[in-house]
Amino acid sequence: MKTNKTISAIFITLIFSALVHETQANKQVHALVRLYKSKLSKAQTVNTSQFESPKSLHKANVVLSQKGHKENDKIRRLPGQPYVKFDQYGGYVTVNESAGRAFYYYFVEAGKPKESLPLLLWLNGGPGCSSLAYGAMQELGPFRVNSDGKTLYQNKYSWNRAANVLFLESPAGVGFSYSNKSSDYKNGGDKSTAIDNYVFLLNWLERFPEYKGREFYLAGESYAGHYVPQLAQTIIYHNLIANETLINLKGILIGNAVINDETDTMGMYDYFGSHAIISDETASTIRKYCNFSPNAVSQPDTCIDATNDADYNIEAVDIYNIYAPLCFDGNLTTKPKKTSWQNIDPCSDFYTYAYMNRQDVQEALHANVTKLDYDWEPCSEVLKGWLDSSSTIIPLLKEFMKIKLRVWIFSGDTDARVPITSTKYSVDSMKLPVKTKWHPWFHQKEAAGFAQVYKGDLTLATVRGAGHQVPSYQPKRALALVKHFLSGKPLMDSSKR
Amino acid sequence: MKTNKTISAIFITLIFSALVHETQANKQVHALVRLYKSKLSKAQTVNTSQFESPKSLHKANVVLSQKGHKENDKIRRLPGQPYVKFDQYGGYVTVNESAGRAFYYYFVEAGKPKESLPLLLWLNGGPGCSSLAYGAMQELGPFRVNSDGKTLYQNKYSWNRAANVLFLESPAGVGFSYSNKSSDYKNGGDKSTAIDNYVFLLNWLERFPEYKGREFYLAGESYAGHYVPQLAQTIIYHNLIANETLINLKGILIGNAVINDETDTMGMYDYFGSHAIISDETASTIRKYCNFSPNAVSQPDTCIDATNDADYNIEAVDIYNIYAPLCFDGNLTTKPKKTSWQNIDPCSDFYTYAYMNRQDVQEALHANVTKLDYDWEPCSEVLKGWLDSSSTIIPLLKEFMKIKLRVWIFSGDTDARVPITSTKYSVDSMKLPVKTKWHPWFHQKEAAGFAQVYKGDLTLATVRGAGHQVPSYQPKRALALVKHFLSGKPLMDSSKR
Repeated sequence: MKTNKTISAIFITLIFSALVHETQANKQVHALVRLYKSKLSKAQTVNTSQFESPKSLHKANVVLSQKGHKENDKIRRLPGQPYVKFDQYGGYVTVNESAGRAFYYYFVEAGKPKESLPLLLWLNGGPGCSSLAYGAMQELGPFRVNSDGKTLYQNKYSWNRAANVLFLESPAGVGFSYSNKSSDYKNGGDKSTAIDNYVFLLNWLERFPEYKGREFYLAGESYAGHYVPQLAQTIIYHNLIANETLINLKGILIGNAVINDETDTMGMYDYFGSHAIISDETASTIRKYCNFSPNAVSQPDTCIDATNDADYNIEAVDIYNIYAPLCFDGNLTTKPKKTSWQNIDPCSDFYTYAYMNRQDVQEALHANVTKLDYDWEPCSEVLKGWLDSSSTIIPLLKEFMKIKLRVWIFSGDTDARVPITSTKYSVDSMKLPVKTKWHPWFHQKEAAGFAQVYKGDLTLATVRGAGHQVPSYQPKRALALVKHFLSGKPLMDSSKR
Repeated sequence: MKTNKTISAIFITLIFSALVHETQANKQVHALVRLYKSKLSKAQTVNTSQFESPKSLHKANVVLSQKGHKENDKIRRLPGQPYVKFDQYGGYVTVNESAGRAFYYYFVEAGKPKESLPLLLWLNGGPGCSSLAYGAMQELGPFRVNSDGKTLYQNKYSWNRAANVLFLESPAGVGFSYSNKSSDYKNGGDKSTAIDNYVFLLNWLERFPEYKGREFYLAGESYAGHYVPQLAQTIIYHNLIANETLINLKGILIGNAVINDETDTMGMYDYFGSHAIISDETASTIRKYCNFSPNAVSQPDTCIDATNDADYNIEAVDIYNIYAPLCFDGNLTTKPKKTSWQNIDPCSDFYTYAYMNRQDVQEALHANVTKLDYDWEPCSEVLKGWLDSSSTIIPLLKEFMKIKLRVWIFSGDTDARVPITSTKYSVDSMKLPVKTKWHPWFHQKEAAGFAQVYKGDLTLATVRGAGHQVPSYQPKRALALVKHFLSGKPLMDSSKR
């Protein structure tokens, strides 16, 4: 039945085949594949309709007493950790008492000026990937795991130099976060995640009351392109109906973000073409014959054949950073390998996995208190279903711009999975007038990337030489970017242009 | 006179502005700018017509006695050089006795199996840049200069592991090569360079008779996209009229090569666009309003304005490797800085300059015997004019394919100056049928790049993560590439596809 090939067939081969030799080192992709598969299959089990107003919650019904929790959550010292001058907390926040649903968080305060610095929540994507695995331990957190799987080294460019940073494992089934109602793992989705994340935040602020009213920012990468705007929408909506600033949300920052399925997919193939990974012929055939609109259910053979050709070629590289080395040996070493802030070890996922599954580490983190019957994984293996995922988050971005919420979108320019091409197409589709033309932005005399500001305001910025996990590959530039974002200072003084 | 802006204006601002902070570290560009300027100005002082048959030379009239020269040319040891197991030679070959025109060469033999390995001539571009400065000391040669400017370290991936490699400073006025007839410096050009290079080779083979009849390959980068094919044409022509294999040319290899002015320029701007250096708007305006055909003498204001916008942005990065660091401090250090084969020091041009201008080095090299009244420079500052430069070398490539000469074209895929986009457009314009589809090629389990073979045969290959000077940025992959080329083995066994 040649003509019945569905789009899902493309995505399955495309993404799975890209990871043949990457096994655990790129688990985050499997979840995204599963989602795309169900989103784009003829069966359409995923609701891809646009976001509506979130379900209304009454604070009094969802906020539990947090007395004593903060003190208990304080992390004395992580095993193998170097000495540092800031405080860390880790623990569980119940988001649904009747289901026994609890989210694990890891909170890293800033050093000395923590009172004057904002609060920033970081979310990784997937769906199903852990902000502890990526954000905290491989990207913007203060520590990274050595190749011995048991000691840590410092990330000099940790974002807790700019903010008090909260990492959340969400939804239930991800990392240490769990539910006692096993059906929760089959019924995940964007909407329920946004609500649970919101309930988490309300309770967390109850536990850390000194952060109530603090300037608050939401950030994340990849599929957090969905999580972040939806959580923002939920926050804004409840502030509005409560007629009170329950959470003082000031802005959102999303990187290499899933924004708009159609342009994201087009941009991915165009990037493969313009970066000489696939031939110009294959790229133009895909552009001509494939239909990535949310309504398309099947593709002509010409499209399928061209995407198969693409599969063959992209298998050869890490599409999350087309110039990066691959991980060939994830075995732990007796002594830590020499580390370099400039070149993250491509096998870091293996070291993090080993570290997080140590009993002493879990005890120090106050994690896994219920003794889950499965390992902690960088990306969930228990989360099975995903009920809703809108085909676009653009309407939310437009809403935010109307109410002058700070919206920044960044892109590591060597990522081919959700590349800058996709992000540009998605932003272009908003047809916003340009305020500050595409220009370089600098850090330590070098071009850290390029950026454009649209009237409204919306800032789009690249980070030069960074893959999908921007702070892993360009920690200095990523820290400079987030400092600009938090301060609201444009990447270029507009008077210069 | 707004409408009289010429194309040259674009090129001058484009290229000079890109180098504001790079001064000496990128001298090679100035010569290319000068050439483009004169090629594209209304005055048209440069002859851009296609290549004709070379001027016929009689060997007996141009070959001089080389007795005793080889022995004198043997380099005992270069100052600051580590111990090695191969022989080096350096010296002058007179290419025109009456003008007193002599070319400096540096020859690095292979180690043990030198008798069984071919001879390869490497040429750098410009016009006016030295194969000693780039090829030998920063790219594929056995040594690189330390930051102290007086000691050398080894390049483990030197091409003399695959061939006996001859570096030539050409034409007169480049590096140590000179002419006693000062007008030669004003009357340089493609044609005279090809003839002088040919006379050089005949005499050099007389001096090194053991290489007569040896398999011979021509290789080079950038403007050597002109030098190499024209020298090849001259060799083939003289073999034909002599009815004898005077030089046993087997193939040519050109990288990030100037091939076809129109597609080269289009491809450069398209690369800026697809790599997020300039905005999509600027890129599409240039594509729509600029005319880069050899016949165009002026451009509309829309084009000029868009290229000015591009200038502003590309100034921020090293367009010869868009992800590379820049050189901010070219001062010599007392002790050599730590070196890494993976990351070439962006200030290497300064160290090479210092080393080459030392008297002990020049004596060891048998260079500068006539005591030139100017410094040795990576790219010539005495070469002023360039009389002819065809707008395309494609007719030559087609000629070579007809006679089954091996033709390989490679491209470091992070170069934006003569990028893979340009090279693909140029090769596409030949409308050759595909023999082996675009596919990855591997070295040490990783994708070293991508490649395609056209029927005829012509091979086009990228080197992943390499800038304009491919062996500087990816020495391992570059050595693997040249080994494939010399052996004539395709980068992928075609039975696999």
